[in-house]
Amino acid sequence: MTDAIWALPITELARRIAARELSSVALVGAYLDRIGLLDGDLQSFVCLSSTALDAARAADEEIGRTGPRGPLHGIPIGIKDNYTTADLPTRAGTSVEALTFPRQDSHCVAKLRAAGAVILGKLRMHEFAWGMVTPPTRNPWDLARVPGGSSGGSGAAVAARLCPAALGSDTGGSIRIPAALCGVVGLKPTYGRIGRSGIVPHSWSLDHAGPLTLTVADAALLLQVLAGPDPADPAATAAPVPDYTAALGEPVRGLRVAVIRNHFFEAVDADVAAAVEEAIRFFAGQGCTVRDVTVPALRYGLGAIYAIELASSTAYHDRSLAQGHVAGFAADVRDLVEMGRLVTGPDYLRAEQARGLIMAEMAAALDDADVIVTPTSPLTAWRTDEATVALAGRQESVLAASWRLTYPFNLTGLPAIALPCGFDRRGLPISLQIAARPFAEDMLLRFANQYEQAHDWWRHIPPLASEP
Amino acid sequence: MTDAIWALPITELARRIAARELSSVALVGAYLDRIGLLDGDLQSFVCLSSTALDAARAADEEIGRTGPRGPLHGIPIGIKDNYTTADLPTRAGTSVEALTFPRQDSHCVAKLRAAGAVILGKLRMHEFAWGMVTPPTRNPWDLARVPGGSSGGSGAAVAARLCPAALGSDTGGSIRIPAALCGVVGLKPTYGRIGRSGIVPHSWSLDHAGPLTLTVADAALLLQVLAGPDPADPAATAAPVPDYTAALGEPVRGLRVAVIRNHFFEAVDADVAAAVEEAIRFFAGQGCTVRDVTVPALRYGLGAIYAIELASSTAYHDRSLAQGHVAGFAADVRDLVEMGRLVTGPDYLRAEQARGLIMAEMAAALDDADVIVTPTSPLTAWRTDEATVALAGRQESVLAASWRLTYPFNLTGLPAIALPCGFDRRGLPISLQIAARPFAEDMLLRFANQYEQAHDWWRHIPPLASEP
Repeated sequence: MTDAIWALPITELARRIAARELSSVALVGAYLDRIGLLDGDLQSFVCLSSTALDAARAADEEIGRTGPRGPLHGIPIGIKDNYTTADLPTRAGTSVEALTFPRQDSHCVAKLRAAGAVILGKLRMHEFAWGMVTPPTRNPWDLARVPGGSSGGSGAAVAARLCPAALGSDTGGSIRIPAALCGVVGLKPTYGRIGRSGIVPHSWSLDHAGPLTLTVADAALLLQVLAGPDPADPAATAAPVPDYTAALGEPVRGLRVAVIRNHFFEAVDADVAAAVEEAIRFFAGQGCTVRDVTVPALRYGLGAIYAIELASSTAYHDRSLAQGHVAGFAADVRDLVEMGRLVTGPDYLRAEQARGLIMAEMAAALDDADVIVTPTSPLTAWRTDEATVALAGRQESVLAASWRLTYPFNLTGLPAIALPCGFDRRGLPISLQIAARPFAEDMLLRFANQYEQAHDWWRHIPPLASEP
Repeated sequence: MTDAIWALPITELARRIAARELSSVALVGAYLDRIGLLDGDLQSFVCLSSTALDAARAADEEIGRTGPRGPLHGIPIGIKDNYTTADLPTRAGTSVEALTFPRQDSHCVAKLRAAGAVILGKLRMHEFAWGMVTPPTRNPWDLARVPGGSSGGSGAAVAARLCPAALGSDTGGSIRIPAALCGVVGLKPTYGRIGRSGIVPHSWSLDHAGPLTLTVADAALLLQVLAGPDPADPAATAAPVPDYTAALGEPVRGLRVAVIRNHFFEAVDADVAAAVEEAIRFFAGQGCTVRDVTVPALRYGLGAIYAIELASSTAYHDRSLAQGHVAGFAADVRDLVEMGRLVTGPDYLRAEQARGLIMAEMAAALDDADVIVTPTSPLTAWRTDEATVALAGRQESVLAASWRLTYPFNLTGLPAIALPCGFDRRGLPISLQIAARPFAEDMLLRFANQYEQAHDWWRHIPPLASEP
């Protein structure tokens, strides 16, 4: 435990900034110092903004004159490198120099700047968001282990307190998996809740933008700023944005928890399962009704998301394939982009039909429940040299296992949050996932906040990051 | 010209039935007589209902007791053979005996029965709605010519006055093409306006249900009954259904006509072009403003609809392919269903993107216009032995030409009506197409009705059908 400013959540940083107890310049400087100290080992940032301190100075000046615009004013935030930025290059994790991306702020970055946030730098990601490893970024809980992906830089940086929040993107779990493996909060809101224009596409119908933060309350603050219409994203909704902080602190007594026993609990590490069962008991103890349900159509889930994701990604990379740029992708990503050509149109449509079935069954499960509670990842962070894991007595690829519990909420578009719920026998973070009905982010934040308030796992700082 | 009851539109039949001047039994009997007399040559019906006269008797009895339920009470209607029916088999144009379809009323047939209509029989269609020829059905204007397709039986039967109205389905023009070639009215409403549950699918995102009738007013009567929610069709909308007959007779003065000069007028038979230009001048003479526009993205239209239609159809026929049933399809349909496997998932997604562009440009054209006016078909009915046609000095396949002007409104989902607008040098019907904004069927009916009132082409009866 520490009382250093870099260990504080945004709620407290914002309070100190508003009270003139803390300047944005001091805060940005503290994070830049930590990045200099720790990120040689972590490799979470791909570039830092040379104007962050200027932006912090301007924020301090404005706050001094007229007070903060809101809780993000003067707060430094890291950006996944698939969000375009006016002042920093965007590489989306690729080293193919011929591929370039616009030098203009993506919708979310523009919203952050308008809220007064300071863009600190761009965070490493798995190439084109197509993987769960994010080399060469390491996990701050154990440098021999992966941070998860594809928003691995975002997860590692927030966990190591190199920035108090980061943007990620989530097509099959790419916010929630690194959040889980690094022990931070990751929020994938409802499909369409946050506009995605200016994010390098992966799979249009599965892609979501969202924040990684230390606490649930901080996730609510980021969502508040990021949610809303985006005329340049046809999927973004103009549905009204509620006050997400209003739900925080509200008890969950009398509310209903559904536990989907098939799929989500079938092949899960024992420590993970125990921590999640404990969390479910916590909600029961808070006066929730807990009901086991099954969603049989999830048996089609992997085939469905794989067909949709492969076909969509390859449709995006079509020109790069034709022009030979894909040959320069990392081998794993190149394989996936080339494989997308093998998904037939009829396969794609049948995958969409399977998705429709899963959506209908999930909606039915949520007719009688306010939230669904599951593990986020069936395993904790794996070693960079591990390719397979034994779960439920069966050896399987870490990649196949890692997104199994997150992709259902990309297929269905339901909002889902990942938050720390303990540590395994090796001291690695375990994560709880809470999902809710479309646009019921307030409900999901309410449950997550109640759990977090009673446990405070987020206060644990990775050993690497605790060093002075 | 004749004053026989079989030559009357439903508006007049309904008036006589309501006034007790005409019985449903007499009306059904008159059509059954004509079918016996003429359909040996036409081959428009695949089967007749053995209970039609019983249904007519029941209608007469109820009307005598409590008056008609509405304008369709006691009116005989023919049903395209891809709508399932409780009392008649459904074959969807295929001769593969292993393929069977439920013996229950499709949504539209149930709605017709609830409105008191008498189901007369099932009408021939191109196998699985995959063609514009509908063998062995012939065109009542010239038995050496095709009736169009895929609702060829519906077009031929209504034109020959074997029934006063028929149901069709339209995936790329399958209601409007036979309406055009047979000289009747064909209405493809907005995507989602009429529920499709119980219709054998062709391509989910392109399929529309709709009526073929003698007059525009009759099309409005049918739409009134058929429109509305269908819980078993996920695309069907619960949007309120306006009074479609209210718009009939309203002048069009001051309204705005857009004429899309590219694509729709580039390779059109001279007689067709002349008749359509005359119709456009008619609207100008009625006080409409007429403006030429272009929709450049239509250059991607054929590739887009072909990829979507092939992939979707093959996804539906997937099991039939695996089980070998497709080998029993007609050669042309078998080719298409097998070709669908060659559309890749990325192709499909890029086709959907092109569709999005076309939708956006069409919507922009309709920002400044109330309707779009085009020819329905660039050519009139072709001989059954003709495979190609010369248009704009270029020889092309009749199949490629025939749907060129109809499929844009399947891609965009915009409502479109086909109605007679003259005869070519051979005495074959020419057809005008009017499209409108989503769910603006009332606007489209208003224009079509004004044109029809001033021209009355519908009163011309094919020579074959005029015989005693």
